[in-house]
Amino acid sequence: MSFSLAADAPRSLVCLKNVDNLLRCPICFDYLDTSMMAQQCSHTFCSLCIRKFLSYKSQCPVCNLATTELDLRNNRILDDIVKSFRATRPLLSQINSESPPISPKTPSS
Amino acid sequence: MSFSLAADAPRSLVCLKNVDNLLRCPICFDYLDTSMMAQQCSHTFCSLCIRKFLSYKSQCPVCNLATTELDLRNNRILDDIVKSFRATRPLLSQINSESPPISPKTPSS
Ligand SMILES: [Zn+2]
Ligand SMILES: [Zn+2]
Ligand SMILES: [Zn+2]
Ligand SMILES: [Zn+2]
Repeated sequence: MSFSLAADAPRSLVCLKNVDNLLRCPICFDYLDTSMMAQQCSHTFCSLCIRKFLSYKSQCPVCNLATTELDLRNNRILDDIVKSFRATRPLLSQINSESPPISPKTPSS
Repeated sequence: MSFSLAADAPRSLVCLKNVDNLLRCPICFDYLDTSMMAQQCSHTFCSLCIRKFLSYKSQCPVCNLATTELDLRNNRILDDIVKSFRATRPLLSQINSESPPISPKTPSS
């Protein structure tokens, strides 16, 4: 069984891929796990990833701003978003398989 | 033109609706606009919505925890997620139109 989507859906799928990237930790590249935000710069990481990093170097790994464990704040809404978003995996898998190219680069020869 | 999705895609579309709900402000119900997080409880709102609320009452409108403007922190990753997510609108529109029911309740008669 399959069902069909409107012609503008493939572009949407690519946008979902952008959302997917934003929901990943800049340290481990997996989905954020217990999201913690550095309160000065608002960069967000898995709790374990950023704590391990800060124990070694007291700065944000993305923007290098001086940061300690005391500057971390839970970002719980992201945990909820990650949970719901991961359930869209069947849609995401379409991005790399069936969806037609958005801007087909046809060879000129 | 249309393209077809696997059978498990409709369920994914419903999950997208959950993500959509999480990206909306609990005060105005529109998508978050310049997201601000109350740092103690991590509830997140549009900047204008929460500032207007706090000028009237010094508590989080979701959980009632004592909160002032000084407790607000930018939650910039949410702004980026909202921006990318809104571009998936063609997919979202499918939820309320073409997608078949997830658990068809066929009458027993
Ligand atoms: Zn991580
Ligand atoms: Zn940073
Ligand atoms: Zn709002
Ligand atoms: Zn709250």
